[in-house]
Amino acid sequence: MYQLYYSPSTASLAVHWMLIEIGAPFELVLTDIDAGAQKTPDYLKLNPGGVVPTLIVDGAPVLESTAILMLLAERHLDKGLAPAPGEPERAAYLQWMVYLANALMPSFRAWYYPHEPAGEAHAEVAQAAARARVEAVWDRVDAQLAAKGPFMLGERLSAVDFLATMLMRWSRNLPRQATAWPNIARYLARMRAMPSLREVHAREGLTDWIDG
Amino acid sequence: MYQLYYSPSTASLAVHWMLIEIGAPFELVLTDIDAGAQKTPDYLKLNPGGVVPTLIVDGAPVLESTAILMLLAERHLDKGLAPAPGEPERAAYLQWMVYLANALMPSFRAWYYPHEPAGEAHAEVAQAAARARVEAVWDRVDAQLAAKGPFMLGERLSAVDFLATMLMRWSRNLPRQATAWPNIARYLARMRAMPSLREVHAREGLTDWIDG
Ligand SMILES: N[C@@H](CCC(=O)N[C@@H](CS)C(=O)NCC(=O)O)C(=O)O
Ligand SMILES: N[C@@H](CCC(=O)N[C@@H](CS)C(=O)NCC(=O)O)C(=O)O
Repeated sequence: MYQLYYSPSTASLAVHWMLIEIGAPFELVLTDIDAGAQKTPDYLKLNPGGVVPTLIVDGAPVLESTAILMLLAERHLDKGLAPAPGEPERAAYLQWMVYLANALMPSFRAWYYPHEPAGEAHAEVAQAAARARVEAVWDRVDAQLAAKGPFMLGERLSAVDFLATMLMRWSRNLPRQATAWPNIARYLARMRAMPSLREVHAREGLTDWIDG
Repeated sequence: MYQLYYSPSTASLAVHWMLIEIGAPFELVLTDIDAGAQKTPDYLKLNPGGVVPTLIVDGAPVLESTAILMLLAERHLDKGLAPAPGEPERAAYLQWMVYLANALMPSFRAWYYPHEPAGEAHAEVAQAAARARVEAVWDRVDAQLAAKGPFMLGERLSAVDFLATMLMRWSRNLPRQATAWPNIARYLARMRAMPSLREVHAREGLTDWIDG
């Protein structure tokens, strides 16, 4: 039994979604970031950075949404959400998971928390720079889908798609949404039809974005 | 036979170091970032972001230093540099690789390229913010080593140590080096004695840092 500390519409969404897709038993523990629940002493013992998600696996906390997705995919390898070590798509799998975690997530963080990169006084210019970095990643993702689609690694749905789709959702508040890239738009039309993605929106009480 | 596109003393160092440690046959292709070799049209075909490293594996480019380390560790599983899926340290392994890639590398990038977060005019304040984020990560790493040492995952040397040690090296130009944290200092004393780390410094012509 997994326990997921989550807050609706945050980085925990991809994990929540994958848990539904896998069909693994799990419990949700609401950790409302609007109410500051991620900064209570008890939660900080689990997650010293004070962010969601945290997934409890065999009684121990696992942090970092990207890492949790990789762990779940390999613990439930029969669901096919990660190429196993040695499979041909393995290098691309690792590369895209790391690239999204390293290049895209921090840029979104800078867009949504624009005082962090250079202080409140320079939030606007930091946000503009973050936007440019996000868009440069969409160029790369769009090219990958054009070359290898329909999914990020080709024919197989994988953890990369859970991470990428969640991050595409995050672009809904940016001046240029990910759907402005044609191959991403086609991809999202397919992803948004997935029952488990619709279900996670329903369970988190989200009505925006899922219908485009 | 691997081919590593590298530039001395950059993110390619951890990969170069692991290749030496593993004893796998490889060729080096110098891609001098001071000379702009990472922005030539030919290199951009391999690595569209125009950064080092790129590792050619079975004829295809693999990007992202963190992903390359994970791939090499699992392709040479007999060297013991990654817990296999299902092993007890597996969750911590994934979590730390992702955390260093997501929280620490981008903060170093902001420190070394301080015009990126908010423009040239605000480079100084962006650099100060980056420094604070780097130091917050050293707090977490120091606590992990105190709780679990001698290596990042406990008794076993792993890819996490290759990534973490390289990033500790990067702190040599910051006001507060990683060695200011006592458990990191003890850890680095041990890591710096590794023949393969000394060897990669020699092969890249680096004389700084390795002797403290
Ligand atoms: N690298 C972390 C980032 C998590 C993160 O930044 N979560 C945000 C929500 S999307 C959060 O908890 N923010 C609340 C805060 O920073 O106080 C992960 O991928 O798990
Ligand atoms: N996320 C990439 C980052 C690589 C990176 O930023 N490399 C730097 C050197 S440490 C580089 O190539 N800089 C040259 C440039 O940006 O033009 C990785 O880990 O491979």
